[in-house]
Amino acid sequence: MSSGPSVVALSGGVGGARLVDGLAALLPAPSLTVVVNTGDDFDHWGLRVCPDLDTVMYTLAGVVDPSRGWGLADESFRTLERMKSIGGADWFLLGDRDLATHLRRTEALAGGQSLTEVTATLCAAQGVTQRVLPMSDRPCATLVETESEGTLGFQDWFVRRRAAPTVRAVHSPADTPAPAALLAALESCDLVILGPSNPYVSIEPILARPGVRERVMARPVVALSPIVGGRAVKGPLAEMIGSIRGEPADAGAIVRHYGVRSEGGLLSGVVVERGDEGTVRGLPVRACQTVMGGRDDRARLASVMLEFAETLR
Amino acid sequence: MSSGPSVVALSGGVGGARLVDGLAALLPAPSLTVVVNTGDDFDHWGLRVCPDLDTVMYTLAGVVDPSRGWGLADESFRTLERMKSIGGADWFLLGDRDLATHLRRTEALAGGQSLTEVTATLCAAQGVTQRVLPMSDRPCATLVETESEGTLGFQDWFVRRRAAPTVRAVHSPADTPAPAALLAALESCDLVILGPSNPYVSIEPILARPGVRERVMARPVVALSPIVGGRAVKGPLAEMIGSIRGEPADAGAIVRHYGVRSEGGLLSGVVVERGDEGTVRGLPVRACQTVMGGRDDRARLASVMLEFAETLR
Repeated sequence: MSSGPSVVALSGGVGGARLVDGLAALLPAPSLTVVVNTGDDFDHWGLRVCPDLDTVMYTLAGVVDPSRGWGLADESFRTLERMKSIGGADWFLLGDRDLATHLRRTEALAGGQSLTEVTATLCAAQGVTQRVLPMSDRPCATLVETESEGTLGFQDWFVRRRAAPTVRAVHSPADTPAPAALLAALESCDLVILGPSNPYVSIEPILARPGVRERVMARPVVALSPIVGGRAVKGPLAEMIGSIRGEPADAGAIVRHYGVRSEGGLLSGVVVERGDEGTVRGLPVRACQTVMGGRDDRARLASVMLEFAETLR
Repeated sequence: MSSGPSVVALSGGVGGARLVDGLAALLPAPSLTVVVNTGDDFDHWGLRVCPDLDTVMYTLAGVVDPSRGWGLADESFRTLERMKSIGGADWFLLGDRDLATHLRRTEALAGGQSLTEVTATLCAAQGVTQRVLPMSDRPCATLVETESEGTLGFQDWFVRRRAAPTVRAVHSPADTPAPAALLAALESCDLVILGPSNPYVSIEPILARPGVRERVMARPVVALSPIVGGRAVKGPLAEMIGSIRGEPADAGAIVRHYGVRSEGGLLSGVVVERGDEGTVRGLPVRACQTVMGGRDDRARLASVMLEFAETLR
């Protein structure tokens, strides 16, 4: 493990967390800061639930459920079953073991701790030594504007309605600030990596925090395309590109979304799946196998991204 | 099942709940109101936990753990195990299934419902048709004054320190009101039954609500002694009688604590274990086997109490 560059990785859920896990295998812990989307956070059963923060945390701690990619391994759902039997909400899966996280977080937030502080405590308790920062210490809910059902909260659209209503636009509150530590991390890093997360609902909410986009623009930025062979590795991204941009889902659409640096956009370079190079124009491209399996696979991909970024300096 | 008298039963935890279960087997549901101690209630893991309300509710619903007498049957503790592993408090046993109750209650209270309303909702969801009323809709924490460790919260003394510190006195807030429905139930009932609960920490906190004691005094009152053969059926009562009253624990000490009606005290009559009659003076006594096993046993004891009360009119 070399000392390497100082990296800030922007992440949503499963895909972003797996890339971050690869970066964590290569970089010394102090050289990696993970900035995580909290636009999906919501209150459920009276608890503050932060799905992306937990996915990143559980993945880095090595306790994530390997097949789902989120939640804890060896999970059970006995509270949920009982909740259902006494008339409680059962549309969002909270596991028994996972509940400990939400309970501790909710109690600490109610006690006046910031989400950044609570996240640091939860990371430390699980042996996660990398810095994991929420995009904001304040609630900053992403809203999804749909064609058929009006504007919905993210989880209401994504989980409760299984992402079925067609998306017209995604909105993130413009004024909700980023923590100062997040802005400082961006200012002092050598490289920003955009994880293979959904640009609309995972990465843009982070970039939309005041002061974030211009700080990211001041650094080299390399993205990993979440679109592989015209399809999203996970989730409803391909359909969203169609309904929001009105164009086919391919790696090129991701690049056009973020914009290329030479034209005033965000990306210094992009890493895409082998065979997807042809869809991308106007910036350096590296193609490799991008779909991540186990931890070795993640480290290999992270290594390709860091080496590629080195060539862009 | 005859229509029977209209009964208000005052209850703490396991013993009181079992007697109430017996009464519920004999009386039509509208004829039984259970008033439950909430002095043991506390916040744990950020949740509002009401141990006696839950014991009564689970017992009446037939879902209580039969050997412990509290909590749910078929319980597991996976949240607790995980909570411990991430540094959370593990001194109070909250089961995975039981958590659903605390989560729903905490969320509903935060949403502005009263504890009376939340309890009614939880009862209805579990098929409990009797009226179960908390002694107050406001927090009303019992404090235990100990010889060696100062004044402690009830659960801090009872569970965390296993009731080891010797008790000098028990304090319940004097001004915290009873719900109006509770006062009305006392005014309209034919009989008040004091469950075989700890007088100091279960029944007195109920009686100490403004307006409760005088309304109880205006009705026939029959108590079931929680002391059997000089020992408490459950819990630290025998030691408390020694340290608070400075006399041996027997059924007579219970009667002297509450006082007899003919001398301006509370009790119209008392039901004691066979053989304990000799310790009691100054009021009508009925002796029978009082330690309750299964549901048949509870109904038999409740029947003795109702018949005995009938003779006191």
